[in-house]
Amino acid sequence: MLEDKNPQRTPLEELGEFGLIDHLTKSFTTTQPSTIKGISDDAAVMEFGDLQTVMTTDLLVEGVHFDLAYAPLKHLGYKAVVVNLSDVSAMNAKPTQITVSIAVSNRFPLEALEELYAGIGLACKRYGVDLVGGDTTSSTKGLLISVTALGVAPKNDIVYRNQAKPNDLLVVTGDLGGAYLGLQVLEREKEVFKVNPNNQPDLAPYAYIVERQLKPEARTDIPELLKELEVKPTAMIDISDGLSSEILHLCKGSKVGCNLYEDKIPLDPQVISTSEEFELNSTMVALSGGEDYELLFTISQDDYPKIKGNPHLSVIGHMTEEKEGAHLVTRAQTKIPLEARGWNAMKS
Amino acid sequence: MLEDKNPQRTPLEELGEFGLIDHLTKSFTTTQPSTIKGISDDAAVMEFGDLQTVMTTDLLVEGVHFDLAYAPLKHLGYKAVVVNLSDVSAMNAKPTQITVSIAVSNRFPLEALEELYAGIGLACKRYGVDLVGGDTTSSTKGLLISVTALGVAPKNDIVYRNQAKPNDLLVVTGDLGGAYLGLQVLEREKEVFKVNPNNQPDLAPYAYIVERQLKPEARTDIPELLKELEVKPTAMIDISDGLSSEILHLCKGSKVGCNLYEDKIPLDPQVISTSEEFELNSTMVALSGGEDYELLFTISQDDYPKIKGNPHLSVIGHMTEEKEGAHLVTRAQTKIPLEARGWNAMKS
Repeated sequence: MLEDKNPQRTPLEELGEFGLIDHLTKSFTTTQPSTIKGISDDAAVMEFGDLQTVMTTDLLVEGVHFDLAYAPLKHLGYKAVVVNLSDVSAMNAKPTQITVSIAVSNRFPLEALEELYAGIGLACKRYGVDLVGGDTTSSTKGLLISVTALGVAPKNDIVYRNQAKPNDLLVVTGDLGGAYLGLQVLEREKEVFKVNPNNQPDLAPYAYIVERQLKPEARTDIPELLKELEVKPTAMIDISDGLSSEILHLCKGSKVGCNLYEDKIPLDPQVISTSEEFELNSTMVALSGGEDYELLFTISQDDYPKIKGNPHLSVIGHMTEEKEGAHLVTRAQTKIPLEARGWNAMKS
Repeated sequence: MLEDKNPQRTPLEELGEFGLIDHLTKSFTTTQPSTIKGISDDAAVMEFGDLQTVMTTDLLVEGVHFDLAYAPLKHLGYKAVVVNLSDVSAMNAKPTQITVSIAVSNRFPLEALEELYAGIGLACKRYGVDLVGGDTTSSTKGLLISVTALGVAPKNDIVYRNQAKPNDLLVVTGDLGGAYLGLQVLEREKEVFKVNPNNQPDLAPYAYIVERQLKPEARTDIPELLKELEVKPTAMIDISDGLSSEILHLCKGSKVGCNLYEDKIPLDPQVISTSEEFELNSTMVALSGGEDYELLFTISQDDYPKIKGNPHLSVIGHMTEEKEGAHLVTRAQTKIPLEARGWNAMKS
């Protein structure tokens, strides 16, 4: 009864996720002396005393971010924590505490939530973080999980995404594309299951990529490794949306361009074979797949000897002047502009 | 396809909200040296450097916590922030930063979210806190808002809910019962509106209680006031669920009993007149109504002269030995055991 009867209505799809956040928060300014960095990085940064504290939060919605038909609740709980720890790692900080809130409809029995919290507990133990709070409430439909993570780092250790310089090397951890292909496998098996519920899927040939999808790990080891190697990245981000999207975030944030070399992108053999099986281009899978939760960062060329040959790290390109733009240099030495492709643009 | 076909199923209703949180988190321990207090108070407490940091989080679900038929989105955004700041105040800390995550179905146009964020922004400005992060995602149904707040306090200033002592005085800020009655008025008008959409409700006689429901304020002034008065409460909690429920939390946390005096409970004249109109017992409304976001705390009797006569504070009872239990002493000098009554138990 208090509503305007003739409101303007702009569909949300017109903006997309990042456009929406930017739009909604553009008029917000920060005033607290302890706020070092607000919205615009993987996590917020606060300074309390001698340490800097980072905070990040994520919301996972059933039917949008996960499908309980193939995501066991224990894995889901684990993953919900991991994706936040990954954001803390991407700030070069050490995750310390989390809060977990859930909204849940009454179609879920207690045992389902116990499974979920078993996964949350497993992640807390694996990564040495403390669950320090949360909220549980009922929902009118489905399950929703909201996790917030805190982390700490000594002053000057935090790495943002806006300090990459031309000629810096672009480095990625681990390998890419597995999580997306794992999802393709699981979705295919779900369709098979619908036709014949007695069919037992043989997921063994896909064990690595299915685990990348269902039980990803956060690279909390990387900030420690970088400290040991005495390398402070100039910029860092985690790969939640796909390599090309994250590179473009680094380029935009740092006002630089980039050359990414196709032949340097690290791919697991299972990613290559499964891409072939699904008739997908494995480079496109790595560029657009997302959910790998590896770290992408830039370092000064002077630091190259320190990381050379490290099995966790692959140099995949270098930054350029902004005006040169961001490009993929293919195996055929062709330069293609990098685009933040969506998940539907991947059929080869 | 990975699900157990014959799982045990315990309906969530069997546990209730607090039982559920306790049950799900009972096996969690904390290991980070910076974690001072995990789950079990209004907010978690961390120690980074010389300051202590508190963190709290809340989840609001459409159809569970709010009804957009009478809660304007701007007020909803404001309230979503306030309820978290209230938790920070209840730790005797100063709120500094928040993150806001929303899940929203595509029935909401952008303008609706702009309204919501206008309310969030208003609360940030009013309380001097910074929005430092968040997440927006689509939902399959309705609107869901998750807010996390951080706050700080010098070491030793934080007040928990477990240090009340027998003979301590029980003190409450402001007045009680307004928010619940405001909701009754709004729900009545919604029914009237359904019958005759052209009917314009006259809410003027209910202005105070409707505002208590739609646009509550957090008592961030109270930690400052207590500092000025040189009073450190022995225990403190905010009143989100109703006075009796919060008193029982203090008693349980501090292992004490309590005598609450009916004739001392502060009530606004509008609460008294509207209770009569709705044939509700105003004491029961104050005891069980909830959502007033006032602070409830205990102080040593030695501190009584410091708070005596302060217009913000009412002494409503005193703590006793645990074995004496928690009681309401009625106007007729009868002692009735305090119970954490639900919202449906209030018809007089």
